[in-house]
Amino acid sequence: MTFESKIRPIQWVDGHSRMIDQTVIPYEYKYVDITTGDQMFHAIRDMIVRGAPAIGIAGAQGIVLYAKEGKDKYDNINDFKQWLLEKADYMSTSRPTAVNLMWACGEQKKVIMNSTSDKEGLIKELTEKAVEIEFDDIERCKKIGDYGAEVVPKGATILTHCNAGALATGGYGTALGVVRSAYANDNTIQVFADETRPRQQGARLTTFELAMDGIPVTLITDGMCSYFMSKGMINMVVVGADRIAANGDTANKIGTYTVAIAAKYHNIPFYIAAPLSTIDTSIKSGKEIPIEERSHEEVTHINGKRICAEGVNIINPGFDVTPHELIAGIITEKGILRPDYNKSIAEVFKQS
Amino acid sequence: MTFESKIRPIQWVDGHSRMIDQTVIPYEYKYVDITTGDQMFHAIRDMIVRGAPAIGIAGAQGIVLYAKEGKDKYDNINDFKQWLLEKADYMSTSRPTAVNLMWACGEQKKVIMNSTSDKEGLIKELTEKAVEIEFDDIERCKKIGDYGAEVVPKGATILTHCNAGALATGGYGTALGVVRSAYANDNTIQVFADETRPRQQGARLTTFELAMDGIPVTLITDGMCSYFMSKGMINMVVVGADRIAANGDTANKIGTYTVAIAAKYHNIPFYIAAPLSTIDTSIKSGKEIPIEERSHEEVTHINGKRICAEGVNIINPGFDVTPHELIAGIITEKGILRPDYNKSIAEVFKQS
Repeated sequence: MTFESKIRPIQWVDGHSRMIDQTVIPYEYKYVDITTGDQMFHAIRDMIVRGAPAIGIAGAQGIVLYAKEGKDKYDNINDFKQWLLEKADYMSTSRPTAVNLMWACGEQKKVIMNSTSDKEGLIKELTEKAVEIEFDDIERCKKIGDYGAEVVPKGATILTHCNAGALATGGYGTALGVVRSAYANDNTIQVFADETRPRQQGARLTTFELAMDGIPVTLITDGMCSYFMSKGMINMVVVGADRIAANGDTANKIGTYTVAIAAKYHNIPFYIAAPLSTIDTSIKSGKEIPIEERSHEEVTHINGKRICAEGVNIINPGFDVTPHELIAGIITEKGILRPDYNKSIAEVFKQS
Repeated sequence: MTFESKIRPIQWVDGHSRMIDQTVIPYEYKYVDITTGDQMFHAIRDMIVRGAPAIGIAGAQGIVLYAKEGKDKYDNINDFKQWLLEKADYMSTSRPTAVNLMWACGEQKKVIMNSTSDKEGLIKELTEKAVEIEFDDIERCKKIGDYGAEVVPKGATILTHCNAGALATGGYGTALGVVRSAYANDNTIQVFADETRPRQQGARLTTFELAMDGIPVTLITDGMCSYFMSKGMINMVVVGADRIAANGDTANKIGTYTVAIAAKYHNIPFYIAAPLSTIDTSIKSGKEIPIEERSHEEVTHINGKRICAEGVNIINPGFDVTPHELIAGIITEKGILRPDYNKSIAEVFKQS
C-alpha cells in the first residue's frame, strides 16, 4: 500500500519550479521559487536541491525555464533550439558527477532536437518531459517501496543509514520509500536512523522527513547500531545505493559497510533499495568503483566549529563498498533481486 | 621501552594540585591550580579532570587540601580526623559512579583512621598517599604499555576508540599507553582515532594528546573503521575498558562493540588494555553489567547546536559490551590475558 508523503522536494507549479531549501533543514522548512534557468543552475550547485534523482528533475525543469526566457530573443526556431541546447549542456555541469542530471538534461536535448513544433509548442513539450521525469521518479520509488514492504516483518524496527528518502528523490524515497509503504500497511513499524557522520544526513534529513510524515524515528550515533542489534531491537536494515556492480557489490555513503557487517554478525537481513538505473552492469565488482575523497573539513568541523586537535591527519572517503555476500536483497522497481546477483541482475536487464 | 609523555593531567605541585583543564581541550591547553577541597570537588564534578584513574588521584589530593584547610579549626586531633572523614565521604560523591574515586577516598580514610601522628604528621601521610596513588597509576600504565607493545607489529597502524589515554589516567594511558610504548620502540607506528560520537572523546582528547606527544594520528568517523580495515590499513585495535566480567566480556564506550565486530570480520586482532582493578570477578558475564543511559542532548546537540529534527526519539546508551569471543587479549599490568578468560582471569587473581 502506498503512503501519502508530505515531502515533495521539487515540483513544477504555476509555470515555475518550487523546491524545499535543503540547506536549512532541520532548522527551517521553507520553499524557494525558482523562475529562471540561472537560478536553477545555482540552486543545484549550492545544494538547495540534492540527491541524484531530485537533481535530475531540477535540471530538466531548469531547461524549461531557459526556454521560457529565451523565446522572445530568437525569431528563428533553429536559432532558439541551438541556444537552448547550449543551455542544456551548461545546466548539466551544475553538479558534474551527478549521473541523473546528465541523463535528464540529455532527455531534454532529445526533446529539443526531435521537436517539429514552434517555440510555444517546444516549451510545452519540454514542460511535459520535466513533469514526466518528476512523476516517473515518484512512481518508480513507490514501486520500490511496495516491493520492499513485502519483506518488512510486522511491527519491525528498520535501521537506515544516510538519507535515501523523499528529499533525495521526486518525493517518496528508495530506502525510505520502503519505510513509507511498510508504514502504510502497518503503523506499528518504526525507524532507527544512523546519524551518518561526517555530513550527518541521517540526523539532518532522515529524522526531519520521517518526523514530518509522522513515522516514528529514533536517532542513533553510527557506532550504536551493534548495541541495538544485540538487544534484538533492529529487525532489518534498508539503505540506498550510489552505484551497484554486476555482482551486487554496492557503493553507498561511508559507514554503510560497517552497518552491513554488524547486521551479518547478528543475522539481521541487510537490504539495498535502488532503481535499476543505479546498477552499472559495465563493472564486474565493487573493486572497480572509484571512491571519492572529500573535504577534510567535513570530519574536522561541525557547524563551522573545529572538533579536534590541530596537526591531526584526515582521510575522508565519501563512500564505501558493501560486498554482495552481506546483502540479503536489492529492492528495485522490478522486484527484489536475490543472490546470486550476477544471475539475477543479468536476468532483470534482459527483461527490461 | 617507555615513552616520555608530555601529558600529566593531574600533579601534586608545591603543596597543591595542578590539572589540565579538560573542558577546553582541544581549543585550549591550560593548567588550573586547585588549592582547596571544595575547588577539587567542583573540578571533579564539572569534569575539569575526567577519566576514572585521574579522578581517583584528584579525590585523594582533594582530601589533602581539606586537611590543610582544617588543621587550624580543630585543636583536638580526633575532632580533626572526624571532620576529615566526613570531608572524604563528601569528596567521594563528586562523581558517584566512579569506582576509582570511591577507592582512592577510601585509601585516604584508612590513612586518617590508622594514623598515630599529630595534625602536621597526618597531612604529610595523606600527601604521601596521594602522590603514591598518582605515581602507582603511571607505573601501572607503563607496565600495561610495555606488555602491549610486544604484540604491536612493526610499522603497525593501531585503531583506537574513545580516549583511554594519558588524559584519563595519571599520565601514560592504558590503550594509548600501549601506543606510547610501541612508539618508543618503533617510530613508524601510527594511530587511527575513532571520533567516538556522541561525546567525541576520540576527536577532542585522543587526537590532542597524541599530537601533543608527536605520535602520528589520523582522525576518522566511527562508521569508517570497516572501510580502512578492508583496505588493509589497520593492523590491530586497542581500546580501554570500563568494566570487565570474569569471562572477559568487556564494557567500554558505546561504539566499541561495533569496532570489535568489524575487526573480527577482517581478522584483525582486537585488544583491551586495562588495569586488573577494572576486572570485576564478582560478575560472571557482560549480561550483568548495567548500561548507563545518558543525556539525550549528547546525541541531538553538538557544541550547543541542535543537529536533528524536533520530535525525534533518542536512546543514548553510554557503553556497550564486547563479548569475550571478539577479544584477542586483555593487556594488564601483569601481562596479556588470553582466552579462555575464565581461566586466565582466575589465574592472575590467584597470583596477586
